[in-house]
Amino acid sequence: MAVGDISTPKTIFAIDGVQLSTTAAGVRYQNRDDLVVIEIAEGSSTAAVTTKNAFCAAPVRILREHIKQAAPRYLVINTGNANAGTGADGRARAEAVCQGLAQKAGVESTAVLPFSTGVIGEPLNSEAIVNSLDQALTNLTADGWLAAANGIRTTDTVPKVASQKLTIDGTSYHISGISKGSGMIRPNMATMLGFVATDADIAPETLQSMLAKINEKTFNRITVDGDTSTNDCCVLIATKAVKTDLGTIDSENHPHYEALFAALQSVFLRLAQLIVRDGEGATKFITVKVTGGNTSKECCDVAYSVAQSPLVKTAFFASDANWGRILAAVGYAGIEDLDTENVNVSLDEVMICQNGGLAPDYSESQGNTVMSRPEITIHIDLGRGEAIDTVYSCDLSYDYVKINADYRS
Amino acid sequence: MAVGDISTPKTIFAIDGVQLSTTAAGVRYQNRDDLVVIEIAEGSSTAAVTTKNAFCAAPVRILREHIKQAAPRYLVINTGNANAGTGADGRARAEAVCQGLAQKAGVESTAVLPFSTGVIGEPLNSEAIVNSLDQALTNLTADGWLAAANGIRTTDTVPKVASQKLTIDGTSYHISGISKGSGMIRPNMATMLGFVATDADIAPETLQSMLAKINEKTFNRITVDGDTSTNDCCVLIATKAVKTDLGTIDSENHPHYEALFAALQSVFLRLAQLIVRDGEGATKFITVKVTGGNTSKECCDVAYSVAQSPLVKTAFFASDANWGRILAAVGYAGIEDLDTENVNVSLDEVMICQNGGLAPDYSESQGNTVMSRPEITIHIDLGRGEAIDTVYSCDLSYDYVKINADYRS
Repeated sequence: MAVGDISTPKTIFAIDGVQLSTTAAGVRYQNRDDLVVIEIAEGSSTAAVTTKNAFCAAPVRILREHIKQAAPRYLVINTGNANAGTGADGRARAEAVCQGLAQKAGVESTAVLPFSTGVIGEPLNSEAIVNSLDQALTNLTADGWLAAANGIRTTDTVPKVASQKLTIDGTSYHISGISKGSGMIRPNMATMLGFVATDADIAPETLQSMLAKINEKTFNRITVDGDTSTNDCCVLIATKAVKTDLGTIDSENHPHYEALFAALQSVFLRLAQLIVRDGEGATKFITVKVTGGNTSKECCDVAYSVAQSPLVKTAFFASDANWGRILAAVGYAGIEDLDTENVNVSLDEVMICQNGGLAPDYSESQGNTVMSRPEITIHIDLGRGEAIDTVYSCDLSYDYVKINADYRS
Repeated sequence: MAVGDISTPKTIFAIDGVQLSTTAAGVRYQNRDDLVVIEIAEGSSTAAVTTKNAFCAAPVRILREHIKQAAPRYLVINTGNANAGTGADGRARAEAVCQGLAQKAGVESTAVLPFSTGVIGEPLNSEAIVNSLDQALTNLTADGWLAAANGIRTTDTVPKVASQKLTIDGTSYHISGISKGSGMIRPNMATMLGFVATDADIAPETLQSMLAKINEKTFNRITVDGDTSTNDCCVLIATKAVKTDLGTIDSENHPHYEALFAALQSVFLRLAQLIVRDGEGATKFITVKVTGGNTSKECCDVAYSVAQSPLVKTAFFASDANWGRILAAVGYAGIEDLDTENVNVSLDEVMICQNGGLAPDYSESQGNTVMSRPEITIHIDLGRGEAIDTVYSCDLSYDYVKINADYRS
């Protein structure tokens, strides 16, 4: 059951220069779309970030090589099979898909980036994919975002789409994106993918830098179970369809940089939060905001320590305002010389812990009121500096165990 | 439900120089012993290690100060209340207990070490404890180990005791110990305690060094949910009742050092493993053994990454030989330059993953046979060095969520 607002936008803006198609290739699932192709206009900028997992999947390795060699023109994404833990055969199959698409589309194989999500350790049915590529190219349409969001789902219970239009000094930009993932990782449903495009005219290096920064505050700040998948990838495309007199956006000093950055970040944040809202077994959406740290690194460490603690997560599932578990998780986050007497903790507007102990004005009924909400912010102030960071999480329920214990049976 | 052999030893050796008592003080629980006092003969060596959690409880802070100032003569342990998150009042109450016992026993207050386990954030009923101290001192007996193991339980389903006798060159030494804990942490049942005594003649510095090393391989190598409690403490006592012509054991070069170290380690390991076997909701006891690392640190990191992964733990609960989840957890353990093609994984005698992929000879029926066992060893060979390390864990079941979600309701 997804938590809170998981609706798709009423308007999903087409991005001039991007077309998408979905096709039922029969990779694993029957009677549903499982192959998505995204075509990127020539001359576009494309940036990517990939999983840090040492056991990254074959398509991730190929992506890293291809994107160094050529400007991407096609993204090809299959669901149902992650092509991970598949060795040399897996690599050959991912390359076969790239080559098949390149040949049919008339581009170099290095201009194709492959993505796979689904079961680990089984051979990818690359023949089925290659046989469906003609259909996939025929199906391309600028209005394919929602269908593509559905086409990349594995166990996601909802399609994940975000879209925004912003106008700066009379120039209108559009941003649309899709994501998938419902545990942070399903090593046999390996897992998080994000694809976002804008029609802005952004230089490749600037786009890569924007993606790296935005990813740090969005997809890299969510957790369902703390695992990191073998297949996580995130792509940001700028088609340059919207040109202005101000020239290409090639640095932070460009007049449109800041507003575009903020809009892109809000689209990424929505796509990332949708993954948590659709987290396996989630019944509560939890924002862990840490302020007053010496560095944002230590704020992030504390936030993750709390966001990933099974004891905090089960307490939230039980709607139990268990501040002792929160304090304990703060305490083992590894901050040296933390003066616990300066630490305050609030749940939404209710201060529960003041100066490292129970807040004198706190009452159980206040705690119960807060904990009955489906969306709760844990605000931890470390009382030692100016740095802040925020992580998004969900609770740990019976259903999480059920989903992950039953998956292969 | 505890996993495997959780029996108490048929013979629990008394340790000459140590007496124990248990008393029903009514700290929180009614109609059960909740106060344990351990008397240590004058002239004994006592070593302690304590939690690294920044929010350590009042008794832990006092222990750290007292043990620097005097040789401990009494340990006073209450269950039902952790005296954590209780600020200055909590400290005063812990000191009142120490002073009360010191006065009645005729020792300095600094010769008393306090320990508390139980609910966080509530005032300790120190008056009830002080009022019971006369009775506690009257009850002291050398045969009190099992009663003490019961007296320190919170939600532990079994008392945890280990005892051993070893004879070296005609000299007989005895070791007895008790522990408690069933989640690695219950911040509102804060949590792991261990008390071990031997009659060997070991110098204080040597004893502290032995405890630090042994703790690293035993209590510091277990995980139930990855949390670290505010109250964790472990104490090792050497009463020196057994003297030999070889003199005090004051270095690794003493002829009896090695055998004694091994025996002490096996007692600690048993006490630590009993905590995992009695882990909240545990249905499987999992040993994660990592070999072939460059350093034992990286072996430990990989072992913990696997042992703590919720996805690995739920797969074991489901008896699903899900090697993809194991590989993924190895992959995100943070080893730089890990060559995944050298990694092998076995479950007991069955090799499931060879050179980073599915082992060619592996069959699902082999996996099912292994996974049906209540005790399973995951052996991960990193194929890059000679270092090894081992961590003990359990699975993640519905009951873990139930126990931790329902605890305060």
